Amino acid sequence: MQRQHYTAEHELFRDGYRQFLRKEVLPHREAWREAGIVPREMFRKMGEHGYLLIWADEKYGGLGVEDFRFQQVMLEEDARYGEAGFYHTLHSRLVAPYLKHFGNAEQQARLLPKCVSGESILAIAMTEPDAGSDLAGMKTRATDCGDHWLLNGTKTYISNGINADLVVVAAKTNPDNPRQIGLFLVQRGMEGFERGRTLAKMGLKAQDTAELFFRDVKVPKENVLGDPFKGFHYLMRGLAEERLIGSVMYLGNAWGSFEVTCEFVKQRMVFGKALSEMQNTRFKLGSMRTELEVAQTYVDHCVDRHNAAELTAEVAAMAKLFTSEVEGRVVDECVQLHGGAGYMEEYEVCWRYTNARISRVYGGSSEIMREIVARSILGR
Amino acid sequence: MQRQHYTAEHELFRDGYRQFLRKEVLPHREAWREAGIVPREMFRKMGEHGYLLIWADEKYGGLGVEDFRFQQVMLEEDARYGEAGFYHTLHSRLVAPYLKHFGNAEQQARLLPKCVSGESILAIAMTEPDAGSDLAGMKTRATDCGDHWLLNGTKTYISNGINADLVVVAAKTNPDNPRQIGLFLVQRGMEGFERGRTLAKMGLKAQDTAELFFRDVKVPKENVLGDPFKGFHYLMRGLAEERLIGSVMYLGNAWGSFEVTCEFVKQRMVFGKALSEMQNTRFKLGSMRTELEVAQTYVDHCVDRHNAAELTAEVAAMAKLFTSEVEGRVVDECVQLHGGAGYMEEYEVCWRYTNARISRVYGGSSEIMREIVARSILGR
Amino acid sequence: MQRQHYTAEHELFRDGYRQFLRKEVLPHREAWREAGIVPREMFRKMGEHGYLLIWADEKYGGLGVEDFRFQQVMLEEDARYGEAGFYHTLHSRLVAPYLKHFGNAEQQARLLPKCVSGESILAIAMTEPDAGSDLAGMKTRATDCGDHWLLNGTKTYISNGINADLVVVAAKTNPDNPRQIGLFLVQRGMEGFERGRTLAKMGLKAQDTAELFFRDVKVPKENVLGDPFKGFHYLMRGLAEERLIGSVMYLGNAWGSFEVTCEFVKQRMVFGKALSEMQNTRFKLGSMRTELEVAQTYVDHCVDRHNAAELTAEVAAMAKLFTSEVEGRVVDECVQLHGGAGYMEEYEVCWRYTNARISRVYGGSSEIMREIVARSILGR
Amino acid sequence: MQRQHYTAEHELFRDGYRQFLRKEVLPHREAWREAGIVPREMFRKMGEHGYLLIWADEKYGGLGVEDFRFQQVMLEEDARYGEAGFYHTLHSRLVAPYLKHFGNAEQQARLLPKCVSGESILAIAMTEPDAGSDLAGMKTRATDCGDHWLLNGTKTYISNGINADLVVVAAKTNPDNPRQIGLFLVQRGMEGFERGRTLAKMGLKAQDTAELFFRDVKVPKENVLGDPFKGFHYLMRGLAEERLIGSVMYLGNAWGSFEVTCEFVKQRMVFGKALSEMQNTRFKLGSMRTELEVAQTYVDHCVDRHNAAELTAEVAAMAKLFTSEVEGRVVDECVQLHGGAGYMEEYEVCWRYTNARISRVYGGSSEIMREIVARSILGR
Repeated sequence: MQRQHYTAEHELFRDGYRQFLRKEVLPHREAWREAGIVPREMFRKMGEHGYLLIWADEKYGGLGVEDFRFQQVMLEEDARYGEAGFYHTLHSRLVAPYLKHFGNAEQQARLLPKCVSGESILAIAMTEPDAGSDLAGMKTRATDCGDHWLLNGTKTYISNGINADLVVVAAKTNPDNPRQIGLFLVQRGMEGFERGRTLAKMGLKAQDTAELFFRDVKVPKENVLGDPFKGFHYLMRGLAEERLIGSVMYLGNAWGSFEVTCEFVKQRMVFGKALSEMQNTRFKLGSMRTELEVAQTYVDHCVDRHNAAELTAEVAAMAKLFTSEVEGRVVDECVQLHGGAGYMEEYEVCWRYTNARISRVYGGSSEIMREIVARSILGR
Repeated sequence: MQRQHYTAEHELFRDGYRQFLRKEVLPHREAWREAGIVPREMFRKMGEHGYLLIWADEKYGGLGVEDFRFQQVMLEEDARYGEAGFYHTLHSRLVAPYLKHFGNAEQQARLLPKCVSGESILAIAMTEPDAGSDLAGMKTRATDCGDHWLLNGTKTYISNGINADLVVVAAKTNPDNPRQIGLFLVQRGMEGFERGRTLAKMGLKAQDTAELFFRDVKVPKENVLGDPFKGFHYLMRGLAEERLIGSVMYLGNAWGSFEVTCEFVKQRMVFGKALSEMQNTRFKLGSMRTELEVAQTYVDHCVDRHNAAELTAEVAAMAKLFTSEVEGRVVDECVQLHGGAGYMEEYEVCWRYTNARISRVYGGSSEIMREIVARSILGR
Repeated sequence: MQRQHYTAEHELFRDGYRQFLRKEVLPHREAWREAGIVPREMFRKMGEHGYLLIWADEKYGGLGVEDFRFQQVMLEEDARYGEAGFYHTLHSRLVAPYLKHFGNAEQQARLLPKCVSGESILAIAMTEPDAGSDLAGMKTRATDCGDHWLLNGTKTYISNGINADLVVVAAKTNPDNPRQIGLFLVQRGMEGFERGRTLAKMGLKAQDTAELFFRDVKVPKENVLGDPFKGFHYLMRGLAEERLIGSVMYLGNAWGSFEVTCEFVKQRMVFGKALSEMQNTRFKLGSMRTELEVAQTYVDHCVDRHNAAELTAEVAAMAKLFTSEVEGRVVDECVQLHGGAGYMEEYEVCWRYTNARISRVYGGSSEIMREIVARSILGR
Repeated sequence: MQRQHYTAEHELFRDGYRQFLRKEVLPHREAWREAGIVPREMFRKMGEHGYLLIWADEKYGGLGVEDFRFQQVMLEEDARYGEAGFYHTLHSRLVAPYLKHFGNAEQQARLLPKCVSGESILAIAMTEPDAGSDLAGMKTRATDCGDHWLLNGTKTYISNGINADLVVVAAKTNPDNPRQIGLFLVQRGMEGFERGRTLAKMGLKAQDTAELFFRDVKVPKENVLGDPFKGFHYLMRGLAEERLIGSVMYLGNAWGSFEVTCEFVKQRMVFGKALSEMQNTRFKLGSMRTELEVAQTYVDHCVDRHNAAELTAEVAAMAKLFTSEVEGRVVDECVQLHGGAGYMEEYEVCWRYTNARISRVYGGSSEIMREIVARSILGR
């Protein structure tokens, strides 16, 4: 189906960004995976081209782009020509919005410009060892000490954990009420803030996922985001967009896998025939293409709703659930169609497969999405 | 997601049609299933209300409705409050369009008014014993005898087979070229045209599916549709709409199953709890709802494309494949959630399940859909 | 794999039973399905040939066969040449054993001979409307009135409900303890015992499944089975064998579907080729055969364990779960490979499909089996 | 089910081997994965303990163990406490048997003792770039030059490719007949035999998989295995055992994943409850355990048949197909139940998942297995 989602302006933007990726990312991604981290200067390069926080106000150096489709274009291009481990969208769309929505004018003026330029790299620290995404089980605590808060705790699985200059840290602020949480801005160099080693993961090898330790970190009051007892609510605000971002990414990875597989089966000869002439191959491709097309239509629809400020967390949960499950099925089938080659890192379907395995888990697992959808049906 | 597909006008039409179904269909459907056929007068009742051939020109008594969404509304209501075996859409949308597109002015003037009024019931006869939907293997033959064609052959699995007054019969017309096919209008009462008994089916019990026999039937030349050697091409023309109609129906049946199941699990107590409180139930409902929502968005999108005359056979094939597979999964899961009740005919999920089993097969099986989609990807 | 499970003696027995089925059952099964019941005399014919209660002691007219493989042979033959709705195994293996294990000598002498001869047909009444298989939610009650118990309640989904002469009815016996249940022998003709109409089901059309009503039925004390407060425990005793019986049946139905499908695809031509030459067909057959073979090996293994009195309820639960799920997948795929023919009752795959749909539900649903297995792993 | 497959003797052997693994393998496996290769001395250590070629005749230093169950014990222990990338079974069971079956007395005497002791490490080179496992497409060629054969070609995906001292190389020997293949023994140091770099793979990180190059390698006639035109036939001989070995391995990996997951869900708390108390967790564990148990019963049955020399290639194909598909489903579900932890290499389910992805592909893909089974059903 001719996709009617984008205008010429989006496609122009796509061309520029694709060129950027081909020049600045594609040649280096193997080295970054080997290193387990993306060089800090990549954020500055992105910033120079205006690719970070595209939504930010011009007074902070941003482009003020409100149409989510531009971000969608970037996510799609990242999924095909970029490096999934260079997850700058976390910086621009998952962390920086906390400053926009809950930061005060002083904090925005002080912090946003460097986020837009890429000088200051962002991370968010919620997950803890043994607690997973269950916020109520959080052990990190902040104690009000008059002119500062004293922060203690350990966070894990933190993306951009090594590169980050500014970390939004969630901590319990009221010993008597486990649902009162504050968000604290911890900066590189603050005393008592230490980083563990990069955690070895199944995929997303270029991403610096790390453990972070906070021992008696003094967070000055000007680094508290909004009301220090309403963090729980703040963390909910961005969920719909976060899930939508995930959906675009997962589907992008699935499309990428599908396309390299279509090429592969046309060239690969077995028993004197192209693999693409085998009925099994054709049926698998037909099924995958159908799922991809249907999922894409849904995601585009969600993006439209998001642009109209009508995307609910429940609808975004369906998008997240469906796309990550489709991605899982597609990458598995694509590896299978590659035969032994699919197990070799030199074929991109190999790392697409391992990258994909986290999609059904993080940002709310498929199980949590199913419960969210169920609750919206059943009322409770 | 608030569905934005319909306008107030469609919803008004929906209300009227739903009332009609509740009055004229709902109270009788068990009797019709028992009888294995829908009374002929039902077509006249539909005609009286203007529900047949809604697209037909006003000069033939039609409403001239070009917006497919009105038909979609009817299909959705049929799927929830109607009787799937009363398949009037076959009459209105799958057979009558042959008259519109390939009939000449005389044929249209002679035949369409009675189709619109429901006096003349339509069927189409393609499938043959041992040949399935493979047109090249067709054995029915028509021989040109000057002022008429002589028709010989047997057709099977013909819906409306008993009720039909006018049957569009496909037959080979050139012994030297198996791809030359003609479409012949055979009318009730023509000598040599006989009907077998109603075929017992797994579901769709109210539908009069039958075998038809043609032995030396003299079809006058004025009953030949268009060019008697181009029927193969004619049969292809309506495929996109046919698949789209199927998609709306399958999805409607799936939604119907889902809704009665949501009600059931809220009321059903097991081990002192409502079944809807069980995590397994919730996860299944969450998954089903997600698939239904995603499929609906795709179907609505296809309807929009169809209204813009841009729906390709390939895209419609994806809709047909996806919706019929979703329907299959959903009705199976809904029966399971009903426990033993799901096996009892008094629960509607029971007949929804057996009705559904043909969707992945007829109108082009899932296997054929996969091949069509694959061909559109691979070029051949 | 050459199956090594049976000896020549079993095969001889199989030949005889198959001949019996071909003569006495095969020619009548359509009529029975139409009638919704199997004629009572069929039980007597079975009895005459010694096919009922083959385990029963010779003093009651039985053969004293302890090797379960003979029953397995019968179940396999039933599944291929018999009528699933003629469920005599319920009589012989699911109900009669209550007399053997919990009946006293007087009861056995009085009742067993007619069970062996087929004069007295058995049923068991546990399930109730709105309670399903949750025994704790049972509403039927029996009150001790000195020389008799007074029985009140309603039971549903009772197989052999119309034919039964003797019904084992479960009822609560202690208003203060919902887990105290008694088993009462209710005989045809007892005052206050009435039967509802046969319940219309999706499949198993020849089986007389009915609702039973008990209104102030006086059950004499000599018709109480064992201790009237230990019925809960009694109902557990036979679970392993019941699940094993189910497993053999489901697998038999799946094998039957598979075999007719292998024949079908060899003869069916599509696009000039036998359907069996299509890669998709071959892959599906290869997958199905593998699942069937693996499941059969497991079932045979369980039968061996059962003969050694070592079959646990947990292991039988795995057999029940696995075989019913395999059956579900196999019959669905077999219908699909039949195309439109699979939807027609004249093809046996059609009724095999609808018969199969109850397997994952009754006798403990797949969900309950999963929980049982999980508990055996996790300890609780 | 109490497994009755082994005797006390096997369990004793298991204890010894497990101790060996715990001492010699477990502490080093991360280092080996990092290095991408297992140290050569490991083969000698295995040899010293008698763990290589356990079937070999005592005159060559072997134990003459014919009961395959001892090898099965080793495979099971490897799968739980060993390192899948240290694939000594390839040496002992997949390559060395060529010497046993097709080597002459001189070759056996010359080569087998060092294979038994672990001084000489074996590999087999069949697969080629662009040809996969399609032997007819092989391009490597050997030309008869009187006292030697001249070998030219490239092989890829060769396990033990770097460590191997002796490589069995398949090459076409008759330019006029593509089905005439010879097996040539190429030894470390022969001129023209070169190795490429270790190929980076998705999993099995400790295995030295490499490309091998043969440029005008002179293979002396005493290094030809059997008849140089019957290699095709030779390569078929061991297929049943090879598939059986795979089946034991895949199932072992699946069991290992299952067991660590059972431990994990008991300890992991979510929303105040152990994950093992969630119904979804329980149902997933119940399903997995059932599949594992059923698969194990089948594999044990195949081992018995193999010990009786009655295991056919078709039956082994079913075992290979079923176990690798079960492994795939199980490891995927186990990662899911681990949540984010399952993506971290510190949890063994992470590498079990990536190790597993090759099982459905190598040694004959699932697609090839399905075709083999189908052929055995349909006759061709």
